[in-house]
Amino acid sequence: MKLTTYLRDGQARLGLIEGDNLIDFNDAQPQVPADMRAALEAGVDLQAAARAAHESTAARLALDTVTLAPLVPEPGKFICLGLNYFDHAKEGGREKPDYPWFFFRGKSSLLADQEPGRVPKISSKFDYEAELAVIIGRSVPRHVSQQEALDYVFGYSCFNDMSVRDYQKRTPQWTIGKNFDATGGFGPVLVTADELPQGAVGLNIQCVLNGEVMQNATTSDMIWSVAETISLLSECLTLEPGDVIAMGTPAGVGQARTPQVWMKEGDTVEIRIEGIGTLTNPILAEAV
Amino acid sequence: MKLTTYLRDGQARLGLIEGDNLIDFNDAQPQVPADMRAALEAGVDLQAAARAAHESTAARLALDTVTLAPLVPEPGKFICLGLNYFDHAKEGGREKPDYPWFFFRGKSSLLADQEPGRVPKISSKFDYEAELAVIIGRSVPRHVSQQEALDYVFGYSCFNDMSVRDYQKRTPQWTIGKNFDATGGFGPVLVTADELPQGAVGLNIQCVLNGEVMQNATTSDMIWSVAETISLLSECLTLEPGDVIAMGTPAGVGQARTPQVWMKEGDTVEIRIEGIGTLTNPILAEAV
Repeated sequence: MKLTTYLRDGQARLGLIEGDNLIDFNDAQPQVPADMRAALEAGVDLQAAARAAHESTAARLALDTVTLAPLVPEPGKFICLGLNYFDHAKEGGREKPDYPWFFFRGKSSLLADQEPGRVPKISSKFDYEAELAVIIGRSVPRHVSQQEALDYVFGYSCFNDMSVRDYQKRTPQWTIGKNFDATGGFGPVLVTADELPQGAVGLNIQCVLNGEVMQNATTSDMIWSVAETISLLSECLTLEPGDVIAMGTPAGVGQARTPQVWMKEGDTVEIRIEGIGTLTNPILAEAV
Repeated sequence: MKLTTYLRDGQARLGLIEGDNLIDFNDAQPQVPADMRAALEAGVDLQAAARAAHESTAARLALDTVTLAPLVPEPGKFICLGLNYFDHAKEGGREKPDYPWFFFRGKSSLLADQEPGRVPKISSKFDYEAELAVIIGRSVPRHVSQQEALDYVFGYSCFNDMSVRDYQKRTPQWTIGKNFDATGGFGPVLVTADELPQGAVGLNIQCVLNGEVMQNATTSDMIWSVAETISLLSECLTLEPGDVIAMGTPAGVGQARTPQVWMKEGDTVEIRIEGIGTLTNPILAEAV
């Protein structure tokens, strides 16, 4: 099953993908709440509802005519891992970390597929980061084992953890450099876990800037797997339905290149993950 | 005007304080949404609604008979400042910072007044931090000046930024040590900005552990004032109605004492802020 979140009359609504079309999931199956997180919290059987929706005569909307929203517009928590690919840690001059560098994003930083990322007025050091996003489906018990952790994953998507590097490094806390408005590309679709390899391992992941491949790796290169990360987080906190974990980025970021590469107005940045899809964001200057 | 958030049939609802009683704001004035953040987002005139509610014959509930919820149960963003009192930076062996150390909390870490803080299974280094919480009332324009920043503050409350120190310092990112379940005491009431000094300056702020004063300072000692902090954040992101900023803690934390003091099961911790009230949390071991 593939899902997306699209805008209808300014409201974010859950869409079920069918080829090049979208079915409004709530219109077709009214027991499914119209918001992604609410649908997960409600605990309805989305796979069964999706089968029924596909068999129904509900209206089909051509995907290329709809405007998407961030995949989970309002996650309870959006947790990011820093330095989860050793080659990226190395290119930043760092040792292999022995615990994930966790930080959070707020919803005001999130962007839909095709929505412009914005170069801040106060910085030109605007970088890309290709990441695998994990969407939690059910509340994760505290202290869950790695063996059981993947049972709570609903699906996967693409994330672009666009970073304002000088603010990221202004203090030891990276949070502010990761939370500028319009810097977190998220989508276009969620692919449910059953349609991907266990833990989404072995998927090619790329960042492509203006047609040039800037990052090219496999999700198997992560230091902490999805299962390990969920298990580690569950020692500390409760992961809830609709929470998101962005799994860190491989080598090749603009900051580590010689010469350095910064995104600027007129650029187009894509995150491509095998088996999931392509997240595309044009880059514009901060809106006045 | 003083507001709180209380639980009715498991739902968090906005309460208007009247002496030792509470009026359910939504029951008395149905145009006021029942959730604090939703009420702020709706942009209704809460002061006028409060006057009408006080004049109404709506039911009064004795405050000592209700169960509170975290003051804003689901803020869009919960932004914390590290090291915003120079004496606390010094006791941690740090220089005066030249930019705030921002990090975020997620809602799963928040606690109501009287709700137990929980010593994690995996750590005994559980510390208190008395903080002033700022609740944003209206969307803050990007790049707002310090002079205009306070116009967007709805009110103030108490926050206990309970910290799991070994996890806070496990990597340079403090986030995980600040996001354990049941570690962010928040309440009991919001006092609107008009009832406090401009920017909530000059208020005595204390942490009291088992009756002993552990932190004792004034909000005037902050390095970055509320107005400066809002102005700085607005260079980066949009502060939205119901967003919260926790303004950092003064000297006297348990970690910096000789010998060190850690909260343990059976303790009671209070945050007292002059003109606002007292936030009380018993401390228990992590629930099984």
